[in-house]
Amino acid sequence: MSWLDAIKWDDQGLVPAIAQEAGSGKILMMAWMNREALRLTSESGHAVYWSRSRGKLWHKGEESGHQQIVHAIHLDCDGDAVLLEVEQKGGIACHTGRQNCFYRELQGDEWVEVLPVLKDPGEIYKS
Amino acid sequence: MSWLDAIKWDDQGLVPAIAQEAGSGKILMMAWMNREALRLTSESGHAVYWSRSRGKLWHKGEESGHQQIVHAIHLDCDGDAVLLEVEQKGGIACHTGRQNCFYRELQGDEWVEVLPVLKDPGEIYKS
Repeated sequence: MSWLDAIKWDDQGLVPAIAQEAGSGKILMMAWMNREALRLTSESGHAVYWSRSRGKLWHKGEESGHQQIVHAIHLDCDGDAVLLEVEQKGGIACHTGRQNCFYRELQGDEWVEVLPVLKDPGEIYKS
Repeated sequence: MSWLDAIKWDDQGLVPAIAQEAGSGKILMMAWMNREALRLTSESGHAVYWSRSRGKLWHKGEESGHQQIVHAIHLDCDGDAVLLEVEQKGGIACHTGRQNCFYRELQGDEWVEVLPVLKDPGEIYKS
């Protein structure tokens, strides 16, 4: 019985993972992990997700340098959601160059962007 | 074009919703919403989720009294995750009687319960 068996993987073998910044408590992003991603996250101490769009493991920061150092891993009551407490390298979690991905806020019946772009994505992802 | 159209509902018409306590920044829970749940959440100012196990709308706190008053609704960059800032009535978000659902922490290769039960579930859910 592995600790990984406590997780209720969905029918695609994935579980949602929330990354929260240690200290500030800011929610940085939500992504997905498969069994291998979560095992690697625990073993390496760096967040590894499963990219559903690319269909492969995604070592967060592999291109951008914006790695997430994992301080703690939590599991919820139903075993179907994971919470990571992380240190965000570069202070930028979002591929848009913002501090976090939840930069749109509902105001009335419109989504308003409430966080600034800290770095041009073109500079983050040099081809 | 409704603000609800900005959301990338999954193939079951759902989106994951994270509830974070306003002020403390604590992550309380993660649940799911369909279009109707999110619309009702915005209109009523109280969190409404979609219960996948019961297959119906779940007005959080309808049985327990542990409602969530919604201060803000955020959407992420990909439009496939929602973040709610809420005030948690009763200070208990989890059906186990704990402050939040992420009460298990990975220590070595074991999940350890790190939050106390504040109220017996039998007292919360009187039949």
